[in-house]
Amino acid sequence: MSNTEPAEFDRDIAVRRTDDRTYAAELAPGWVVGGGVNGGYLLAVIANALRAHLPSHPDPIVLSAFYASASVPGPAEVRIETKRDKGSLAIATAELWQGEDLRITTTATYADLDGLHAKSSGFERVTATEPELPPLEECLSSTTAPEEVKEFVPMLDRYELCVPKDQFVWGGAAPTGEAVFTGWFRHRDREPDPLSLLQVLDALPPVTFGLELPGWAPTLELTCHIRHKPAPGWLKVTHASRNLSGGMFEEDCEIWDSAGRLVAQARQLARLPRA
Amino acid sequence: MSNTEPAEFDRDIAVRRTDDRTYAAELAPGWVVGGGVNGGYLLAVIANALRAHLPSHPDPIVLSAFYASASVPGPAEVRIETKRDKGSLAIATAELWQGEDLRITTTATYADLDGLHAKSSGFERVTATEPELPPLEECLSSTTAPEEVKEFVPMLDRYELCVPKDQFVWGGAAPTGEAVFTGWFRHRDREPDPLSLLQVLDALPPVTFGLELPGWAPTLELTCHIRHKPAPGWLKVTHASRNLSGGMFEEDCEIWDSAGRLVAQARQLARLPRA
Repeated sequence: MSNTEPAEFDRDIAVRRTDDRTYAAELAPGWVVGGGVNGGYLLAVIANALRAHLPSHPDPIVLSAFYASASVPGPAEVRIETKRDKGSLAIATAELWQGEDLRITTTATYADLDGLHAKSSGFERVTATEPELPPLEECLSSTTAPEEVKEFVPMLDRYELCVPKDQFVWGGAAPTGEAVFTGWFRHRDREPDPLSLLQVLDALPPVTFGLELPGWAPTLELTCHIRHKPAPGWLKVTHASRNLSGGMFEEDCEIWDSAGRLVAQARQLARLPRA
Repeated sequence: MSNTEPAEFDRDIAVRRTDDRTYAAELAPGWVVGGGVNGGYLLAVIANALRAHLPSHPDPIVLSAFYASASVPGPAEVRIETKRDKGSLAIATAELWQGEDLRITTTATYADLDGLHAKSSGFERVTATEPELPPLEECLSSTTAPEEVKEFVPMLDRYELCVPKDQFVWGGAAPTGEAVFTGWFRHRDREPDPLSLLQVLDALPPVTFGLELPGWAPTLELTCHIRHKPAPGWLKVTHASRNLSGGMFEEDCEIWDSAGRLVAQARQLARLPRA
């Protein structure tokens, strides 16, 4: 591939301004998961439109998304309203539409991450611990998933996810009995950045797969925090839930970069699969 | 107090419909904290307007709030747009305005909690652990805070917060060195319910108080999950942060009810106080 050709991910999240608050996108069929398009990919499309709309604030800092209906591959529109644009932070809402159907409504705070960090006091205190994973060569790669799984989840061809053998759900591993899912992750032809982290925050199978609850776990809301620009290389990603109750569960996601830094966090509220 | 007189909290969050999508409120001076009005109280005002607007969906399930500017006591307006109202869930946005100033922009999913629970499979798996607190009689109560503290934080008179002695920041306890804050909580004259939990999720001092960072820690975004209707009685509330870095920190809040159930969770992204 030549250096001038954009990566697949960048082609797939491209947007085109059509009026002073609207951006056209083409949702790529490669990001389909079962009956819909991956929610994390959709956030990256929306975030790309927000970035174009807020030129002095290039980075998503926090983004909250409410999922109204399942998206399908094809044309879509991102409609933006700036709510605040003052000083070092901008707040805007962005809705993803397909025809007459609202797919996702989001609100986000954008800023220049480097600028925010330069202005900070330098105080650091991270007690979260990096996930322990077997070396890459001992993990099983999503690229080896059976063809019938890839047909149902074409998204598996967009990246490589390498997981401990007992979590290899694509290969038919038995449920671990834990509400945890962890793995190494990288996009096929692109280094991570704040926009791609939004996709990664909702890329892994839900933790309910580990609990013999393999059905669809629809997300009600997902909030993403982008804390640092990630170093190049493989990412470590974890999903975990501590409160599966009353038909719903919270799922926390962390992304650690190759420098051992916690670069992004997400929490979602999802519905438990029906028994 | 007679049974027909509403509790202080209910009077303070009251709203009055002024047109087909707007509700008038009066932000009560009793909820002031330093230079602004408590963010959790403001969420309860907004949530009360949303409840009035979505009569078949009485309970907030998830609510995300972005804080645009500090509120002041006095008149305010909640402007609502319903985004989806189909089946058992409704999604709406609600903005809090004072004059020309946007204070908070929120999005929420509402439902009937009892109905959602009745339709669930009954699957339960809670690995989160209830906070260990000394008995109430061994804790120190916010009601004994010095007068000069109460003058700066009039909100302290709206509820009782009883904390272990080493966390008694109002009495001048030394920082604990931990990014944790825990206590017993109850509103002065009212049992908890889903609306009041929204206030409780942002009522405690920030965890940065434990780290010799006593300044203002402005919230960028706060997401609340209301998972169960709380049992009557005292609540246990915890705040904790695991990732203070790059000028920001995440703060997770949990509320446990008197029946020992994790009834609500929140996560916020806030800016670290300037050194």
